[in-house]
Amino acid sequence: MEGGKGVVKHIFLAKFKEGTTEEEIEKHIMSYADLLNHIEHMKSFEWGTDVSIENLHQGFTHIFEATFETLEGRSAYVAHPAHVKFGTALFPTLEKVIVIDYVPKA
Amino acid sequence: MEGGKGVVKHIFLAKFKEGTTEEEIEKHIMSYADLLNHIEHMKSFEWGTDVSIENLHQGFTHIFEATFETLEGRSAYVAHPAHVKFGTALFPTLEKVIVIDYVPKA
Repeated sequence: MEGGKGVVKHIFLAKFKEGTTEEEIEKHIMSYADLLNHIEHMKSFEWGTDVSIENLHQGFTHIFEATFETLEGRSAYVAHPAHVKFGTALFPTLEKVIVIDYVPKA
Repeated sequence: MEGGKGVVKHIFLAKFKEGTTEEEIEKHIMSYADLLNHIEHMKSFEWGTDVSIENLHQGFTHIFEATFETLEGRSAYVAHPAHVKFGTALFPTLEKVIVIDYVPKA
């Protein structure tokens, strides 16, 4: 557990389609971060680009991690109109995506 | 940033081969966690199983997250004999794997 930042972690891995511009990608990242201001269940958001050295990233280039306090909060986020709108704009730009959630244990 | 827990996040997604027993999986998870005791650069470890509801987990069932204070610490971990030994035992049991590292930004 990380100091009240949530007990459900929501990991999103993305590979954008060839031709997606840096500007488009930045816009989607800002929209993702902005969900924090619209969905109270979402407790934190962070992201970064792949810096791995093991050549096992399978082409994924962007990692996004959000946290939620409960599974119910996570589910409310998934169904929230702001999230649905964000996803509807994002998905056509993705070549590959993985979304996986877990409740961290030590 | 999460209270001194590291600035490099190392995400490992696994799908185990059919026939891998729960006991074998548990043993690998314990070995992964035990790396904390052998590799000083590794600052935290947590894991969990998929509880996502969006059907975008692409068959991955286990998530592991380790943190490191620096990219150099991450690289030292990757090359460390204890990590290499762990990986050599783990990899034959995996059907699919993704390893992706990032430096989190808000």
